[in-house]
Amino acid sequence: MNLALLFDDDFVAANRALLTGRRLSHLHSVLKVAEGDLIPVGRVNGDIGTGRILQLTDAQAVVEVELTDPPPSPLPLTLIMAMPRPKMFRRVLQTCATLGVKDIWLINAYKVEKSFWQTPWLSEENLRENMVLGLEQARDTLLPRVHIRKLFKPFVEDELPTLLQNTRALVAHPGAGTPCPAHINGPTSLCIGPEGGFIPYEVDKLVEAGCEAVHLGSRILRVETAVPVLVSRLFDACG
Amino acid sequence: MNLALLFDDDFVAANRALLTGRRLSHLHSVLKVAEGDLIPVGRVNGDIGTGRILQLTDAQAVVEVELTDPPPSPLPLTLIMAMPRPKMFRRVLQTCATLGVKDIWLINAYKVEKSFWQTPWLSEENLRENMVLGLEQARDTLLPRVHIRKLFKPFVEDELPTLLQNTRALVAHPGAGTPCPAHINGPTSLCIGPEGGFIPYEVDKLVEAGCEAVHLGSRILRVETAVPVLVSRLFDACG
Repeated sequence: MNLALLFDDDFVAANRALLTGRRLSHLHSVLKVAEGDLIPVGRVNGDIGTGRILQLTDAQAVVEVELTDPPPSPLPLTLIMAMPRPKMFRRVLQTCATLGVKDIWLINAYKVEKSFWQTPWLSEENLRENMVLGLEQARDTLLPRVHIRKLFKPFVEDELPTLLQNTRALVAHPGAGTPCPAHINGPTSLCIGPEGGFIPYEVDKLVEAGCEAVHLGSRILRVETAVPVLVSRLFDACG
Repeated sequence: MNLALLFDDDFVAANRALLTGRRLSHLHSVLKVAEGDLIPVGRVNGDIGTGRILQLTDAQAVVEVELTDPPPSPLPLTLIMAMPRPKMFRRVLQTCATLGVKDIWLINAYKVEKSFWQTPWLSEENLRENMVLGLEQARDTLLPRVHIRKLFKPFVEDELPTLLQNTRALVAHPGAGTPCPAHINGPTSLCIGPEGGFIPYEVDKLVEAGCEAVHLGSRILRVETAVPVLVSRLFDACG
């Protein structure tokens, strides 16, 4: 937690917030702060700054908040990702939040196991908690939006072409003939397949919707590695 | 497992190998192969190619091996990394192997907890197993070397200057004034700190040894994210 992310509910006055739960534990056990200390804070979807600890008990911390700076710039990226295996999904979601991805579409694919959609990590509460962990790591405040689409064909035919408009649209596919471009630094849409990849029918449908199939070299990467590798390649300002 | 990595002990003849254990289970339960099928194989530190399954039982698979192609190119990178938290270390090691990092130095730092060095993931056998998992993911065969240095000062003063010779030497440090360069594509040494970063004394010692302190922007990344982001930034051929 490189920043304590504050929600509207945490505020008891315009510039005063109460911290409890995980964030309070972190203050006690990791940061080992005392009354009077300053900690980095941010307001969800707002600015970042510092919090002065006015009062610190086992039950709560009272923090006087001064928000002075904008959060890091968001990436101009729409990430369309076949739903990963649950354990990996949780980490990938945190990583996306840390890297500044703000628009995440979780889609179905032939090699997405049906059981993946049952994971509790897809609940509203768990999605938010893991995005918050990723944002706090990066000292960011802008919560990503996550869209869930459990049917491949209607998504790709009815929604994807509109999403791709005015973006450089790519599908990362190990079999593709073209290497992935670098330094796009502008509006981009990126599709990433499941373990084992998109099947040829799916790649064809994505290409039909407007994506260019590109590869990342001869190594096959796991989704959790492919996301930071691709983001770093496409955007100079990442990190 | 995008490739079954074969060790010398697996070979019963020049072009015939026996698979047992994890790799056999994978053939049965994930790849669901039958006798006569071809699977991608590689020989450790050697070439890659295909294996024809001659016999498949619950106890073993007999594979006729034809090695035809070199593995993907290694990265010209010396990675010097403060020992991560054990759970993260295992994943980072796999990721390094997948990305083509071949020379990994695990070093101490002020914010490395002493207990991290006690992890069973540092045993010869576990190091090898996790590197093999990473290589099999990438369809690579070249095992990385892992060097363990539990004392910061003697390593940085006595060994590091020699390691850095004829390389572009960097230390990733969120507080640095210079942004991390891109597309070095040549011999590079990269130091990455622990959670919470190197302390100023450590950065000073690394700079004294020949490293340039560079930052990755305003976001603070976890080690497991920083490694693929940095590798992708430094080397175009990564992935």
